[in-house]
Amino acid sequence: MVVAEVSGAWRVRTIRLTLAYDGTAYVGWQRQAQGVSIQGLIEAALTRVEGAPVAVAGAGRTDAGVHARGQVASARVSTALDMPTLRRALNANLPPDIRVIGLDVAPDQFHARFDAQGKVYEYWIWQSAVMPPHLRTWCWHIRRPLDAGAMDRAARMLEGAHDFAAFQATRSDVTTTTRTIREARVTSEPPPTGPWGGALTPFSGHAIVVRAEADGFLRHMVRAIVGTLVEIGDGTRRAESIPEVLKARDRTLAGPTAPAHGLVLVRVDYPHVAPAVRTL
Amino acid sequence: MVVAEVSGAWRVRTIRLTLAYDGTAYVGWQRQAQGVSIQGLIEAALTRVEGAPVAVAGAGRTDAGVHARGQVASARVSTALDMPTLRRALNANLPPDIRVIGLDVAPDQFHARFDAQGKVYEYWIWQSAVMPPHLRTWCWHIRRPLDAGAMDRAARMLEGAHDFAAFQATRSDVTTTTRTIREARVTSEPPPTGPWGGALTPFSGHAIVVRAEADGFLRHMVRAIVGTLVEIGDGTRRAESIPEVLKARDRTLAGPTAPAHGLVLVRVDYPHVAPAVRTL
Repeated sequence: MVVAEVSGAWRVRTIRLTLAYDGTAYVGWQRQAQGVSIQGLIEAALTRVEGAPVAVAGAGRTDAGVHARGQVASARVSTALDMPTLRRALNANLPPDIRVIGLDVAPDQFHARFDAQGKVYEYWIWQSAVMPPHLRTWCWHIRRPLDAGAMDRAARMLEGAHDFAAFQATRSDVTTTTRTIREARVTSEPPPTGPWGGALTPFSGHAIVVRAEADGFLRHMVRAIVGTLVEIGDGTRRAESIPEVLKARDRTLAGPTAPAHGLVLVRVDYPHVAPAVRTL
Repeated sequence: MVVAEVSGAWRVRTIRLTLAYDGTAYVGWQRQAQGVSIQGLIEAALTRVEGAPVAVAGAGRTDAGVHARGQVASARVSTALDMPTLRRALNANLPPDIRVIGLDVAPDQFHARFDAQGKVYEYWIWQSAVMPPHLRTWCWHIRRPLDAGAMDRAARMLEGAHDFAAFQATRSDVTTTTRTIREARVTSEPPPTGPWGGALTPFSGHAIVVRAEADGFLRHMVRAIVGTLVEIGDGTRRAESIPEVLKARDRTLAGPTAPAHGLVLVRVDYPHVAPAVRTL
């Protein structure tokens, strides 16, 4: 690091990493006292290539078991490698369930978390008698039939700026619990195609996908929403309870937190124009 | 077992199990001295439900890392459970990467291996710069572009009854190396859809799928064929070498054995009419 600062400080750059991962094996995005984190492995790979410690900031702190196909992270590096070569070097130093799928030089002040203007999450539920092996770590298996139409009507009631205190992890510590959900939709999807077979397999079943786009999400917010929507989908709760739950700001009035492994961070959005200068 | 033979022998039945599995964690279908096999786990689950040792015969002895979405197995059981209940009981006693997707009462003499009239395998190759995490255990990652058209022309030369000695594992011990490939095709497929995103993700890439249907396959036959077709796809071998390799019956003249994890047992075919009486 001293060498870089003395001889090459002029070429320190901020990079933006776009990441896909299977979160099954990890304690989550964030470094923890115990267990292997995705952030920790990305930092280790960057540190190895850089030859000096590198810290990484992630846009979303995905929980243990949560997946990503468009997580974004930022870091400051002084490597002379071009981006395609750096991407290959990082992937060579990461396990195959974590991949750097995109890598760009970002504006110097770019910060993956502070600059994020929005995020998109999907939650996948699989409806069938038997859970196909290839979906076991990617979908919540629910055998009882869910009414995707009722779930969609309820999801739309969450759209707009609301206080989502009823839909956050207990003992969360944030300055405000107001978020703006730009779009929340529930759709019914056919079986995934691929090596595991598509609609032609004996896995008679379909997916129900909850997709939510917001300026930001509270801790466990999507999972608490999904747990509530599932109660609406199976008829144990009325869609009309949504406005009441929002108003009451009481976590116990919403549904249970859906399991982590059905959740995937799809995309993080940034303004096209670089943010004003800010000290990192 | 004594109890069953004395008091309930009249209701011993042959069952046909249709199985899907992610072969990643296993030493293969067949019981081995070391390691966990799929056959061993199915037998353990059946034995637990039956309360007495049960042996299982599988149609195809898939290797370590090879997957199935339509493996078939047979067993003789005296449980009084109906088939839907037995299926649930078995799945409750199996790890989530192995599932009984179908379960039927079969003719008494049914034997999954001896009665099989044909099998279908697929081999999945993924073409892209970066291997998506969710495909890492299901597809062979090949970065260099392959000509699927040339591979398909070569695959068709394998159709028909041939001596496939050049395409079997060395030191195999079978009475005849002649097999009939009813159909062999190579197609280009779009990215799998699902929680990991489909064509909309930044995983620019596509699959090349080798699909082969035959009356039976020699050990490593599909993988040796795929290794040879890949050499044709990348231009290091001519399609016209296929007839020469078949004729020479020399394993060293064919391509290398493709990795196990791209292979999936798709289907096993049986005659509609029950086979003639045969002692199990």
